[in-house]
Amino acid sequence: MVKKEIRVIGIDDSPFEKFSKKRTLIIGTFFRGGSWLDGILSTKVTIDGNNATSKLISMINESKFKPQLQCIFLDGIAFGGFNIVDIEELNKRTGIPVIVVIRRKPDIQNIKRVLVKINKKKKTKLIDKAGIPVKIGKIYVQFKGLELDVVKEILRIACTRSLIPEPIRVSHLIAQGIYFGESKGKA
Amino acid sequence: MVKKEIRVIGIDDSPFEKFSKKRTLIIGTFFRGGSWLDGILSTKVTIDGNNATSKLISMINESKFKPQLQCIFLDGIAFGGFNIVDIEELNKRTGIPVIVVIRRKPDIQNIKRVLVKINKKKKTKLIDKAGIPVKIGKIYVQFKGLELDVVKEILRIACTRSLIPEPIRVSHLIAQGIYFGESKGKA
Repeated sequence: MVKKEIRVIGIDDSPFEKFSKKRTLIIGTFFRGGSWLDGILSTKVTIDGNNATSKLISMINESKFKPQLQCIFLDGIAFGGFNIVDIEELNKRTGIPVIVVIRRKPDIQNIKRVLVKINKKKKTKLIDKAGIPVKIGKIYVQFKGLELDVVKEILRIACTRSLIPEPIRVSHLIAQGIYFGESKGKA
Repeated sequence: MVKKEIRVIGIDDSPFEKFSKKRTLIIGTFFRGGSWLDGILSTKVTIDGNNATSKLISMINESKFKPQLQCIFLDGIAFGGFNIVDIEELNKRTGIPVIVVIRRKPDIQNIKRVLVKINKKKKTKLIDKAGIPVKIGKIYVQFKGLELDVVKEILRIACTRSLIPEPIRVSHLIAQGIYFGESKGKA
């Protein structure tokens, strides 16, 4: 049984202009379950770089909210373009289960083809490591450090306002609001 | 009777290093009542400058959420040091009632003395225009464009998680999380 007040964090990246900026903003929002916002974290990752995994690990491990944290939600595994998160490493080095949320069915073969084309073939391994996306309701998930039935239960608690977990929705709105001056759409 | 789902915005500024930066980040968070976060706005104001009023007016008037908005909460009237908001002007040029929330009893005479000392005597008028802070519960408020009994009713709806309205609490956490990498305290 997952508690209704389970402490979770949802992480998303800010939009960015290609070729014009070197780093993009990452926002993490702490929630109790799907309704109470407890705190905000931020960091920056290199666009198309290789530091997303280590940056997320230190952002979480250095947080005062870490001791209560029970689940990390990611909005996809790519932060700042092709800066791809190793979710196995993120799970291992934080000790916290990870759930990746994907809104539309990803075309993994095409993403891999692009990575090979731009000479980032090594990163295709991180995509494989994340596992095959599983459909739950209308969204897709990848996960490490917990079982599918627990994933489903946590999603049921956290998705209070939309199809996606509330901390991801809010991190998305913040990242957009900072970049554009106003958040757009429904996250 | 104020509706439970009344659309409100809460605005706070980011911390800043004096003498090192020219502008500081302003965050506005839209809520329905005290629990549903609908969107995020941001802008920047000059530290110790004179553009806070005009920046807030355009941030709000250009927002897609404007047509539903019924109340503007400000965390104090000074944004970015001594960049003081003319709340009468803010109310008039947006057409939306304004409630300023102050956590501790302000020493207005001392603030005015400082303003005179740093050659910003003209700004003492903006402080006078905001009116004498009224104590409601444990906080103080100043307001324009609505009556005291409506102020009390809106506060009752919006202060769901703490002594201050939820959109101000969240804007404060966001502004801190962006600046420090992690939000501090209880907002």
